[in-house]
Amino acid sequence: MEFVTGVKQKETLEISDILAEDMIGKEVKLNGAIHTIRDMGDVAFVVLRKREGLVQTVFEQGVTDFDLKELKEAATIEVVGTVAKEDRAPNGVEVRLKSIRVLSEPTEPMPIPIGKWKLNTSLETKLALRPISLRNVRERAKFKIQEGIVRGFREFLQKQGFTEIRTPKICAKGAEGGANLFKMEYFHKPAVLAQSPQFYKQMMVGVFDRVFETGPVFRAEKHNTKRHINEYTSLDFEMGYIDSFEDIMAMETGFLQYTMELLQKEYAKELKMLGVQLPKTDKIPFVRFDEAKKLVSEKYNRTIKNPFDLEPEEEVLISQYFKEEADADFVFVTHYPSKKRPFYAMDDPADNTYTLSFDLLFRGMEITTGGQRIHDYNMLVDKIAKRGMSEEGMEAYMSIFKHGMPPHGGLGLGLERLTMKLLGEENVRETTMFPRDLSRLEP
Amino acid sequence: MEFVTGVKQKETLEISDILAEDMIGKEVKLNGAIHTIRDMGDVAFVVLRKREGLVQTVFEQGVTDFDLKELKEAATIEVVGTVAKEDRAPNGVEVRLKSIRVLSEPTEPMPIPIGKWKLNTSLETKLALRPISLRNVRERAKFKIQEGIVRGFREFLQKQGFTEIRTPKICAKGAEGGANLFKMEYFHKPAVLAQSPQFYKQMMVGVFDRVFETGPVFRAEKHNTKRHINEYTSLDFEMGYIDSFEDIMAMETGFLQYTMELLQKEYAKELKMLGVQLPKTDKIPFVRFDEAKKLVSEKYNRTIKNPFDLEPEEEVLISQYFKEEADADFVFVTHYPSKKRPFYAMDDPADNTYTLSFDLLFRGMEITTGGQRIHDYNMLVDKIAKRGMSEEGMEAYMSIFKHGMPPHGGLGLGLERLTMKLLGEENVRETTMFPRDLSRLEP
Repeated sequence: MEFVTGVKQKETLEISDILAEDMIGKEVKLNGAIHTIRDMGDVAFVVLRKREGLVQTVFEQGVTDFDLKELKEAATIEVVGTVAKEDRAPNGVEVRLKSIRVLSEPTEPMPIPIGKWKLNTSLETKLALRPISLRNVRERAKFKIQEGIVRGFREFLQKQGFTEIRTPKICAKGAEGGANLFKMEYFHKPAVLAQSPQFYKQMMVGVFDRVFETGPVFRAEKHNTKRHINEYTSLDFEMGYIDSFEDIMAMETGFLQYTMELLQKEYAKELKMLGVQLPKTDKIPFVRFDEAKKLVSEKYNRTIKNPFDLEPEEEVLISQYFKEEADADFVFVTHYPSKKRPFYAMDDPADNTYTLSFDLLFRGMEITTGGQRIHDYNMLVDKIAKRGMSEEGMEAYMSIFKHGMPPHGGLGLGLERLTMKLLGEENVRETTMFPRDLSRLEP
Repeated sequence: MEFVTGVKQKETLEISDILAEDMIGKEVKLNGAIHTIRDMGDVAFVVLRKREGLVQTVFEQGVTDFDLKELKEAATIEVVGTVAKEDRAPNGVEVRLKSIRVLSEPTEPMPIPIGKWKLNTSLETKLALRPISLRNVRERAKFKIQEGIVRGFREFLQKQGFTEIRTPKICAKGAEGGANLFKMEYFHKPAVLAQSPQFYKQMMVGVFDRVFETGPVFRAEKHNTKRHINEYTSLDFEMGYIDSFEDIMAMETGFLQYTMELLQKEYAKELKMLGVQLPKTDKIPFVRFDEAKKLVSEKYNRTIKNPFDLEPEEEVLISQYFKEEADADFVFVTHYPSKKRPFYAMDDPADNTYTLSFDLLFRGMEITTGGQRIHDYNMLVDKIAKRGMSEEGMEAYMSIFKHGMPPHGGLGLGLERLTMKLLGEENVRETTMFPRDLSRLEP
């Protein structure tokens, strides 16, 4: 009988392995994709793309046991060679090749020059060729940083006593209602794709007190803007036993602090590659919605058109105001008008035309909506009735309030938007691996 | 200007806080949901449910500043009291109450006795009342362990150089084809819900070499069995530069080893609560598909009916065989017939009616399908043609092979099934938070 006993150390090394001081002069085995070949005649620089970055190998006629003419960009190869110091190479070392073994070969030349440092290609083209354009090391670095943000979210919340949950994406009813629901048929019953895990995460607060989820949400928004996509990753948490909605803002601030530190520590290479300056998160200003509108109207000489909502331009100006006044990249805008918030938002007892809720703006754009939720059954029933809504299809959701819920609240954070603003990108599609929008269902 | 500066230490303590030796005799503040009240006359035991477990508090007439008659099960409260040693209480301590403040109250009595140790309720009822039934501490423990499995998967793979990815769930075409696709309309275009991230994770192998995803997948299977649900969590990984499909099995074995250790270390409380004996993972036997059929047929006197597929009963017998012969809970069955595997599976060059693929059986049930994939463009084109399939709608997928892909492979693991078998449950719905099946779209 034969057995698998676990992961065995491979002979082939990674970039970090060959960077150790005592590796100079040693013979090593490497594999990777040929990112570029620079043929200088008798010598050629063959740069390999590996998961940790790029590594320069040197082909030398007569020394390397291979025919350079048979080496193609985008082939994957395994090589044997000797590590040498070379200040002009990435990471300061190169591998002088003894032999090359081809693992696979392309059948067509690259449609875009992914080997270039900056991929000077239109967003349209990059997206159409996504599986290929992401092979550019700066393009892929964006998604390495995005991974870091999700890790930061999970690691921080786990340390804070949160439990990770997985809630269904095919649902009978949307949590936010409205027109932006994708509809489908589920075994002859009408169903929708989850706009948000809202109802489910509240249900799970009754179970685990503090819960989070990092999953896809679906919005059938019919407008094509630089900040909307129709399927995105929502970082959601919901927590019980809060004293006020400020506990939610404090938790989000803690997440941002933890994550910026994690990025600095473990994603420094990618940050440097993209020239990213991390924002300060030690203290984040907060301001009431109505106050923010007034401040901006006064400072920038702007008439308030709609007192119940923020226009995108106002979001930009509020951010600009707090950047100028407090050197802040983030600002919490609190107490949104009740009529602009979903039914489950807790109204402010001091003035129930406002809610105990907030948005977080980051460099001019809303990246989070959060707040305290109603936890009292009768208050919820009243608000649903006052809005002329029906409880139909929400029986399970209503049941948690009948059977006791602690004061609680939470938030949802758009991962792709946060990544976009962090990286200084102008379009959320730049930081979405495979975006879905009005005209894009592929790749 | 006011600022949020991060998470502040709260006055209210968690169970682990009050278990410290020097807490005996100290006055503490706690909050929680009233799990049960046992009224003994002058004294009452009020058990609070908190995220870390249960804690016994003691109400004493004349000592506790509250009217016991006004205290309801399922209310959430904040209490002040003194920590005392009490061997008969959970964790060996109780809190003698000085005062109680009610945070929220239920409006109806519990529909099921969630305060009981074992919830002797039918699965139907538990699922219908999911948001409430999960408040039972043994029910919720299942999902704490499930969280641990996902953590193990991510942590292990991250240490092995994998990058986490997020791929779209609304797609133009299914990766596996067939009848079990959920269809929908996407802005007047036909679309489907992802059956698997297969195409996308292969695309991303060309970018990051090693990738994983933990997300929902959707299967419109029309049969109602104990092992199928229509939306489940797939733990997927895909890795480049493999020497053979055995590298995939080794990686999965490493994941199982890491995860069992993590569960033992950080989820011991829940394992004990559910009486779970973790399986051994130091060595996992593997056997060829045809050989396994033969072994089972001989040992258990069973005629082989279908040489190209495993019947569920055969999966049970193969597991039984390796349990008896090698005390193994897991067994890899390798070299599945090509006609039963998707087009992208790599056929065995030694006999192309079989594939370089495997399933992992765990205690009688398939929990993983994996294997090496075709990485050569021409080989893939030939196989698609041989199957009478069309490349239409797969242009992006095909492009990665045109432009060079390393030898690679991967697997998909059903999280709910693995949890089910680990916990010794009989129905996958027991270990699915909010299952979706033929008759269930709610809660």
